[in-house]
Amino acid sequence: MSGKSDIDAEKAHLLRRDAEWALAASEGRDVERILSFWTDDAVVLPPDLPSIIGKAALRQYVESSLQVLGFRITLSTDEAVLSPDGQLAYLVGNNAVTMNDPTGAPVTTKGRAVTIWQRGTDGEWRCAVDIWNVEPRA
Amino acid sequence: MSGKSDIDAEKAHLLRRDAEWALAASEGRDVERILSFWTDDAVVLPPDLPSIIGKAALRQYVESSLQVLGFRITLSTDEAVLSPDGQLAYLVGNNAVTMNDPTGAPVTTKGRAVTIWQRGTDGEWRCAVDIWNVEPRA
Repeated sequence: MSGKSDIDAEKAHLLRRDAEWALAASEGRDVERILSFWTDDAVVLPPDLPSIIGKAALRQYVESSLQVLGFRITLSTDEAVLSPDGQLAYLVGNNAVTMNDPTGAPVTTKGRAVTIWQRGTDGEWRCAVDIWNVEPRA
Repeated sequence: MSGKSDIDAEKAHLLRRDAEWALAASEGRDVERILSFWTDDAVVLPPDLPSIIGKAALRQYVESSLQVLGFRITLSTDEAVLSPDGQLAYLVGNNAVTMNDPTGAPVTTKGRAVTIWQRGTDGEWRCAVDIWNVEPRA
């Protein structure tokens, strides 16, 4: 990166990419597209579940999540910070996961999420680390 | 950073700093020293608790944690990744928090943590974002 305008452009690129991911995840149809936003060796750390490492494990995780009755996830980002060279970044935001309870009624759990993104040799941003936890009930 | 050896040196610097922080936190005596490892506007996201933002809120959080009966925290780091310019980094690791239960018996909760570090204009690394969640029981 040679200056602030380059970083601003790269930040906008990352935020578009993040928004595309959030849309694909909320639609919950295209597993390969959802997976394409993670690096091949990405680490996903869901609360109260074992760590999920790498594309094969992530595919299984996404597929089984999408089979949960009433499953829906929404993601939003509040803050994006890039390294000065525009190669590493983190986003801080929120998520909300809805599933049906045993009676079939939807239950939504709200969380706070941090994702870490790396820009690949192809210039594209991918998520390398994904961690969240549950926020207290309002 | 001009090359791999510079990045390796900066990574070693960051890991030393992280180890010093872990030691200060586990000793649990010097609140100002513990606080000195966070940026002034650091964001800490503990599971099931409100977000803690900035030094004043963090001081209160650390002080009240250290007053919990039987409180002890240990931190360890598995992985450190720096941006190519050596200005932004993330660490992935584990923590264990012990507190007394109502009968006075110690109870330890194990978690997985991601911390994001920025190198300040003084060249020193400080933690800007700190999030963790509870891992499943073995």
